[in-house]
Amino acid sequence: MVNIVDRETVLCVSLAARPSNHGVRFHNWLYAKLGLNYLYKAVAPTDITQAIAGMRGLAIRGAGVSMPYKQDVIALIDKVDPSAERINAVNTIVNDDGVLTGYNTDYVAVASLLESHGVDPSLKVAVRGSGGMANAVVAAIADYGMSGTVVARNQSTGPALAKRYGWEFSSDVPEDAKLLVNVTPLGMHGDAEDVQSFSDEQIARAEVIFDVVAFPVETPLIKAAKAAGKPTINGGEVVALQAAEQFELYTGVRPSPEDVAAAEEYAQQ
Amino acid sequence: MVNIVDRETVLCVSLAARPSNHGVRFHNWLYAKLGLNYLYKAVAPTDITQAIAGMRGLAIRGAGVSMPYKQDVIALIDKVDPSAERINAVNTIVNDDGVLTGYNTDYVAVASLLESHGVDPSLKVAVRGSGGMANAVVAAIADYGMSGTVVARNQSTGPALAKRYGWEFSSDVPEDAKLLVNVTPLGMHGDAEDVQSFSDEQIARAEVIFDVVAFPVETPLIKAAKAAGKPTINGGEVVALQAAEQFELYTGVRPSPEDVAAAEEYAQQ
Repeated sequence: MVNIVDRETVLCVSLAARPSNHGVRFHNWLYAKLGLNYLYKAVAPTDITQAIAGMRGLAIRGAGVSMPYKQDVIALIDKVDPSAERINAVNTIVNDDGVLTGYNTDYVAVASLLESHGVDPSLKVAVRGSGGMANAVVAAIADYGMSGTVVARNQSTGPALAKRYGWEFSSDVPEDAKLLVNVTPLGMHGDAEDVQSFSDEQIARAEVIFDVVAFPVETPLIKAAKAAGKPTINGGEVVALQAAEQFELYTGVRPSPEDVAAAEEYAQQ
Repeated sequence: MVNIVDRETVLCVSLAARPSNHGVRFHNWLYAKLGLNYLYKAVAPTDITQAIAGMRGLAIRGAGVSMPYKQDVIALIDKVDPSAERINAVNTIVNDDGVLTGYNTDYVAVASLLESHGVDPSLKVAVRGSGGMANAVVAAIADYGMSGTVVARNQSTGPALAKRYGWEFSSDVPEDAKLLVNVTPLGMHGDAEDVQSFSDEQIARAEVIFDVVAFPVETPLIKAAKAAGKPTINGGEVVALQAAEQFELYTGVRPSPEDVAAAEEYAQQ
């Protein structure tokens, strides 16, 4: 099948040391569905400085930014949106006639999901994890008006993350935690896919369970929470919503929730 | 229709101030026909230095280079192939793990067509034109062992081009010219499309007629030469052959003449 690309086609890329096919499939499917002359290509840059130079020089409209470039790109772009400035991490760059602005659509997506799921801001939170994504998640939860505990094994990044938002740090999940959030790779396809990131007892005490792991969507945590009859927010929702935010930033078009769901289903095939 | 691009897809581009859709259609059609996971995208660079940096940084495999960048890129790449060094103009860049080499496939294509059409090297030549493409054409003809006259109105570039290869310069076509070559825009779709770049009398005296104009392939010159029963070489052959050369440089695969012809037909639709 011939790819339909012409001189007018607007090019977007993703920049990651180990690119996945998710964004490529999600964005290209939506471009076709909505009749937009865009193309999305995953790239493993050999040099991030030259890659960002190329974004300007080759008039690339947008770039999704993944590990390990989320901090590095900040020095290479022109403006940082509050969503990215808040957490010092950019996952989306938009090129407006050579002016590059960095956003963080993970932050935007988590904030939006707390609201759309009607999460009660007075609930105490336990966030497991202290990496880059945990930083975006804790910032979004804190800005939603919630507080709680960072639960992590890492004795350096864990306390630092908790301190940044005035939260507690602990190696254990506090008994009063009502919103449980997993931002570790536990339950992700690969080494730890059978590991349930919060115990049945912790789930039983909680009111809402949120797993950021998206591959698979049905992690052991999400399955156990559903079995216990608890409301859940899953990583598929985060991935789809942040990609929809990116999509709107690149194209100016907001895809409908139905189109986003269909694109996400296509992307996960 | 969803474009089929994934993280493994190899990206090639063309760099031109005013990109055409020819290369995009030609290359993408052949990629599909031959089952190669490649994508070709035409780009109008905003800055050629940053565009070449981006070629390295984004691991772009190949770039077709058009006006006005054919000289400018030489200072930005690592190696220059003899085909490009001979005429100080690069129309193709290949990226081998960050090492950029410049080629000139116009030169290669013209040389190859003289041979495949069995042009007698003892014929006297008249080349009309003195721009960048004329430079490639005269170099290829001279290196094929032929000599003759550069016919041009420009009193600066015309004599300089003739001198470079030990040819004559004239404002008029010499009566002994047996190979007539048009490398001006005369006969090209646009302003001068009805203009026949050599007269019926000049055609009658000649043995072979060569028009580098490719859009349309059937220029007034080619039509008149055919009507006079003279063998012709047309611009469509040049474009297709140079694109096939580029294709092989980018992919390592030499498309068959039949596939090249079919791709060229698709490209011109």
